[in-house]
Amino acid sequence: MQFSHQKQGLLIVLSGPSGAGKGTVCARLRNFMPELTYSVSATTRKPREGEQEGVNYFFKTREEFEEMIRNDELLEWAEYVGNYYGTPRRFVEERLAEGQDVLLEIEVQGAMQIKRRFPHGVFIFLVPPSLEELRRRIEGRGTETDEVVERRLDTAAKELGLIEHYDYVVVNDRVDAACDRIRSIIIAEHCRRERLMAIRE
Amino acid sequence: MQFSHQKQGLLIVLSGPSGAGKGTVCARLRNFMPELTYSVSATTRKPREGEQEGVNYFFKTREEFEEMIRNDELLEWAEYVGNYYGTPRRFVEERLAEGQDVLLEIEVQGAMQIKRRFPHGVFIFLVPPSLEELRRRIEGRGTETDEVVERRLDTAAKELGLIEHYDYVVVNDRVDAACDRIRSIIIAEHCRRERLMAIRE
Repeated sequence: MQFSHQKQGLLIVLSGPSGAGKGTVCARLRNFMPELTYSVSATTRKPREGEQEGVNYFFKTREEFEEMIRNDELLEWAEYVGNYYGTPRRFVEERLAEGQDVLLEIEVQGAMQIKRRFPHGVFIFLVPPSLEELRRRIEGRGTETDEVVERRLDTAAKELGLIEHYDYVVVNDRVDAACDRIRSIIIAEHCRRERLMAIRE
Repeated sequence: MQFSHQKQGLLIVLSGPSGAGKGTVCARLRNFMPELTYSVSATTRKPREGEQEGVNYFFKTREEFEEMIRNDELLEWAEYVGNYYGTPRRFVEERLAEGQDVLLEIEVQGAMQIKRRFPHGVFIFLVPPSLEELRRRIEGRGTETDEVVERRLDTAAKELGLIEHYDYVVVNDRVDAACDRIRSIIIAEHCRRERLMAIRE
């Protein structure tokens, strides 16, 4: 009889309200946990300077993207400001099948689509320490009108209502602390009794 | 509205079969996680050189211990080789009430007694990487007869059957790795949605 924590690949979904700092935390996490596989989105948006195919995005034409939708090649997708964004299914499923942990950083509506397909994924909700802090962060950018700030706060408050669909809540009080909590959640999930593989020899 | 990971004290029960290395892991953990409160057992055994009251044990007479049993002052207790051992209730309950995380290192029968009183505790089962490794560890001591080795292995195999009552399984392949997994489990449990306190202002 043998006990080993290796290895069933976990799908980890990092989501949370607008302004919680998902992008910042995910960028730091890439250095903090290089052993994770980070899902790469497909988009019809044009590449910006320095962006690389297969690293930042998979760049697609509208025709290609709509064909992916028809062929059920996307785990979730949405249209923002005239461009499609989505999560290619094959990339995620192949890495999981290889036993790798895959992290998806995604907005809350997309996360709910993922949950329908992967109910056993690990769903992490990133939140700001308070709505007051969220307001300071949004206002601090200094680039948005009062009306836009109010609308973003209103959206964030509504998105917070989706918290009940998540397994874990991580407060983004400090980016390093948030990354350590996410790493801990992933390690702990591999230790859950139901996930541990007991291989009888 | 505020989100904070602080702070409901968690009761963490570290148990596992005889020979898994509970004592070694717990000793390392005291350096690795000094912020945890480590439960101190009561015993009727005589203090050994260097052992301090309230640090290593609470030393009691048989009369005192039996009075504690009658007064329901012990969370669990048992008698081994003519001496009583038990977990004083007040020490654990007071620290939890203060919001401190309390770790109990305890054999499997005691852990089952604790579980009846604290079903929401965090139950961690420490296991050796394999029964072959367990045999090597027991034989490696070189102090026990073949019969004793066989009996200890037999006991460990039976104790492994209690694994289903635990939330987490930690493989003690390396002591440092086991400690990091235990730390991760504690951090992750504080992030579980159900435990997070959302304090509306």
